[in-house]
Amino acid sequence: MKKGSKYGTHRVISPEGALPQPAIKISNDTEIFDNEILIDVDYLNIDSASFTQLNEEAKGDLEKIQGKILAIVEEKGKMQNPLTGSGGMLIGNVEEIGADLKDKIDLNIGDKIATLVSLSLTPLKIDKILNINPEIDRVEIEGKAILFESGIYAKLPKDMEDTLALAALDVAGAPAQVKNLVKEGNTVLILGATGKSGLMCSYMAKKMVGERGLVIGQARNEQRADFLRSIGFCHRVIATNILDPIDVLNKTLEANDGNEVDISINCLSIPNTEMSCILPVKDGGIVYFFSMATSFTKAALGAEGVGKDVTMIIGNGYTEGHAQIALDVLRESESLRKIFEEKYTK
Amino acid sequence: MKKGSKYGTHRVISPEGALPQPAIKISNDTEIFDNEILIDVDYLNIDSASFTQLNEEAKGDLEKIQGKILAIVEEKGKMQNPLTGSGGMLIGNVEEIGADLKDKIDLNIGDKIATLVSLSLTPLKIDKILNINPEIDRVEIEGKAILFESGIYAKLPKDMEDTLALAALDVAGAPAQVKNLVKEGNTVLILGATGKSGLMCSYMAKKMVGERGLVIGQARNEQRADFLRSIGFCHRVIATNILDPIDVLNKTLEANDGNEVDISINCLSIPNTEMSCILPVKDGGIVYFFSMATSFTKAALGAEGVGKDVTMIIGNGYTEGHAQIALDVLRESESLRKIFEEKYTK
Repeated sequence: MKKGSKYGTHRVISPEGALPQPAIKISNDTEIFDNEILIDVDYLNIDSASFTQLNEEAKGDLEKIQGKILAIVEEKGKMQNPLTGSGGMLIGNVEEIGADLKDKIDLNIGDKIATLVSLSLTPLKIDKILNINPEIDRVEIEGKAILFESGIYAKLPKDMEDTLALAALDVAGAPAQVKNLVKEGNTVLILGATGKSGLMCSYMAKKMVGERGLVIGQARNEQRADFLRSIGFCHRVIATNILDPIDVLNKTLEANDGNEVDISINCLSIPNTEMSCILPVKDGGIVYFFSMATSFTKAALGAEGVGKDVTMIIGNGYTEGHAQIALDVLRESESLRKIFEEKYTK
Repeated sequence: MKKGSKYGTHRVISPEGALPQPAIKISNDTEIFDNEILIDVDYLNIDSASFTQLNEEAKGDLEKIQGKILAIVEEKGKMQNPLTGSGGMLIGNVEEIGADLKDKIDLNIGDKIATLVSLSLTPLKIDKILNINPEIDRVEIEGKAILFESGIYAKLPKDMEDTLALAALDVAGAPAQVKNLVKEGNTVLILGATGKSGLMCSYMAKKMVGERGLVIGQARNEQRADFLRSIGFCHRVIATNILDPIDVLNKTLEANDGNEVDISINCLSIPNTEMSCILPVKDGGIVYFFSMATSFTKAALGAEGVGKDVTMIIGNGYTEGHAQIALDVLRESESLRKIFEEKYTK
């Protein structure tokens, strides 16, 4: 066997010098390097943007979607949609662990894991597609995948359904980052508090701020606000149009006795919400963008334009222990688990 | 007189509820509100992207550029290029200070200032264009502008030329943020260390890390690397193609005795440099993006893809005291001042 790059560049076929994600073609040879893990794949959870595109192109014809997936993986060595650039994640069992990793990681042969790095950079070989479930963007296959040394994964827990665990793992970065970021006594504004990551963040923020702190949750209308009030994850709830930053500011001030907040967290997936996230924060505070719809320049120029001395952070989907933290949140909170089961496992 | 919004929304004509920057039209009425400042404008420094566009559209015809500028300001009440969306800054003398601000700010009637908020949100009325200097994107005018309560500005110093001060103020956020961010003993990688903000950041980083720290500067070729070595702002210098993240990583490791760095700072204006900035940083470290060419999603997904537990920060052009810090750097460093005079004042 042989030692590969921590980041998987040894498998890049073209272009030379690229990392596996931007690479056009990577090797899906199932003979692993000393610092790789071979996975016997059960199914792929295709990224929603990617699946929607495939489905539209095929006009809902599952045979055609199947053919397209096989063609992409055959050509690129990975399931990266050439139009959206996105991937997804996979579930499978550990089949082989490279010699260099055996004593370093907490995995054993046969463990069932979900990969938490994107399929867009994961070497994949499909022998056969068994079934496609378009309701939940899931593709059941016979095949193998490879995880690099830098690749992150989570062992699937035995005390919950795979689908529930996946729903939590999908937004695992959010509660973990909030746990790192939010301190006792902080005032925190959560934009998009009623969504999947918003609920996770609200729950964790309330836990972190303690008795002297305050968590304000934003919902887009009174109906959603009532739902948010009913579950009690936020101390106070505001209903406001997220595209009206002055209204967001005013309602936040009202909910916080006239003061700006210490931290705002953007859990939306709506463009042009940068200023709604920046304006309510005090000088010296923190603005955390989980939203993938965030525009770097709109945030940078926006804060300068209003003279806000805030630290703006790009949400990182990975932080140490994030999978465990997300799963533990579901174990801790009966009501969050119930909401997740109802809304996100179908 | 009357009290306006801190952020200038009272001057927005359309669309309703917008902030002045995204607004299509704002009022440039020269009768000021109680929390505004009226400026007698000397000249506009048009943003480079905007001026290039105007110049190309007019095929270099200064009369046509003049007509276009007048038309834009007449229509929008501000000098915001409708195609690039960008503005620039202005220089002028304080003509009037609103009653509410008089005792709160360090300005007097007649002070010469540069506005540090973008022209894209600054109410402006042009009576006459006196001259256009296309070499330095400068438009000399007779006219008035208004600064909102949240608007930031700098008094122009008497010990240096306006053009030199402007060159420093243009990147004022960079050295000030480095001063906040970098601690004694840190190892710091500066990407694009030979550019305007890169030089400022290198100088400040070396000062902050002290004797036990290390500043590594990146240059795009050996010639630029030699220049960087000759001025001594970085302890070590690497020459590498910034679009080859693995090479950037390897050369950084080499320059840092095999270790990843604590902080990387991206001072480039080149797209697709996110991974070159992320890979060399240790878990728990900081990645600071000053580059306006940064892609939010490439940074977020890229860090997750390689399992990097780093804090990624969106460069904020404003932080308290930034103008003073930038001007002081030029006063402290004879060699930096000389480089700025030669390269950026023409």
